[in-house]
Amino acid sequence: MMAVLARSVLVTGSNRGIGLELVRQLAASPWPPHHIFATCRHPEGPRGKRRLHDLLEPSSPLLFAPPDTVNVPSIQGAVRAVDSHLKDQGLNLLINNAGVSSHATLHSLDSQEMLSVFATNVVGTLQEFLPLLEKAAKGAGKEGLSCSRAAVINVSTKLGSIGLCLGVLQAPMYPYRASKAAQNMVTRCLAVELQEKGILCAAIHPGWVKTDMGTEEAPLMVEHSVRGILTVLASLSQDTSGTFLDWEGNSLPW
Amino acid sequence: MMAVLARSVLVTGSNRGIGLELVRQLAASPWPPHHIFATCRHPEGPRGKRRLHDLLEPSSPLLFAPPDTVNVPSIQGAVRAVDSHLKDQGLNLLINNAGVSSHATLHSLDSQEMLSVFATNVVGTLQEFLPLLEKAAKGAGKEGLSCSRAAVINVSTKLGSIGLCLGVLQAPMYPYRASKAAQNMVTRCLAVELQEKGILCAAIHPGWVKTDMGTEEAPLMVEHSVRGILTVLASLSQDTSGTFLDWEGNSLPW
Repeated sequence: MMAVLARSVLVTGSNRGIGLELVRQLAASPWPPHHIFATCRHPEGPRGKRRLHDLLEPSSPLLFAPPDTVNVPSIQGAVRAVDSHLKDQGLNLLINNAGVSSHATLHSLDSQEMLSVFATNVVGTLQEFLPLLEKAAKGAGKEGLSCSRAAVINVSTKLGSIGLCLGVLQAPMYPYRASKAAQNMVTRCLAVELQEKGILCAAIHPGWVKTDMGTEEAPLMVEHSVRGILTVLASLSQDTSGTFLDWEGNSLPW
Repeated sequence: MMAVLARSVLVTGSNRGIGLELVRQLAASPWPPHHIFATCRHPEGPRGKRRLHDLLEPSSPLLFAPPDTVNVPSIQGAVRAVDSHLKDQGLNLLINNAGVSSHATLHSLDSQEMLSVFATNVVGTLQEFLPLLEKAAKGAGKEGLSCSRAAVINVSTKLGSIGLCLGVLQAPMYPYRASKAAQNMVTRCLAVELQEKGILCAAIHPGWVKTDMGTEEAPLMVEHSVRGILTVLASLSQDTSGTFLDWEGNSLPW
């Protein structure tokens, strides 16, 4: 892998799938981040931190902070925990990976499902971590935008591309698609708004990956997808802030 | 104006602004629809049906059916009322105009506001009216797609274009923008899914219009915007189903 991506990284939804593998590869890198924060909804559950610790070297720089992605007081608690751990250095890289899918068709979907998917996939950790990212951007002693200075990466999906609008008849998934289009809008607005503060923002499509969400049918191994994602993240700059890229660095239409 | 646009039309959010003017111009046309259904949240309120009746000829073919756009049982009541009025002919044209704005900035927004804007702007009348549109599409004795056969028109906004991402610093409006990007995704998915059933679907940007929502600052008179919208609707066909057009018929990026 590459040299150190960022001094501190927080990954949401890290108890399985892409989130888990992101934490694993970051920790296993020859130059791992000094601080990796792995968050998930139920860190004490059977798929929580014990599972993650089993996968990692005992010396891994791993800290848990458990925000529920829709529960604001709980996110605020996580922010305080992360902040006090990092002291005055701020958080360099926030990877918003937590998300839920929905296989509702046009006829089976209901408004509660639309709202609950939206709550997790869009509202998420939107603003709570911003002060920590601003702190990192200011203290970095670097110019320009990069994941090593300060960045918000939103894990999106090609199914959230309105322009492509892929496979609707085979996989309607209205709530999932709508929530991801909304998340992409937020990514792009954040990129515009945070640029002058030195914070990069981008949306990443991880590919269709063999995970609980992607199912066994998926063509891509999670190790391969995550290796690609980390390579893309290391390459991001001012020019690619506000874009929508896949795990191989290809640009996708909104 | 043009010849009859559709035999039956339902406009949501019709007690003011663009919705009110849509109903007014439809009713005042030399060849008005046989049935105009004007819906709003509080038809008995001071800005409800009395105001609309004051603006219209007493002979106008106007019927009220009051769905609350987020309350499913209430929408279902409206669907039954419309269905029984139209007998076996179905509804030709559904204009989803009801919507709310939000001036939240990144720092002032909260998750409840995100969800409430999303509930009104995206969830809306999504599926409830589909059986009536399918009935109209089948019974029309017409081929191809058009607003006179069967169509869902979602009133969107240029601010919901992720590609343009206009004026974020001047008007952050995250919940509004995100909800409209999500609505655009739904429009495009519906167009794909409903095409084989003979139902057209498109998103329309009405321009920045002098209304309660658009404020007095807006450059465009509501009469002018709505004249444009109705002209665009009359021109829609198979080729333009699933597109995002402004009130002058120009194509917008997603």
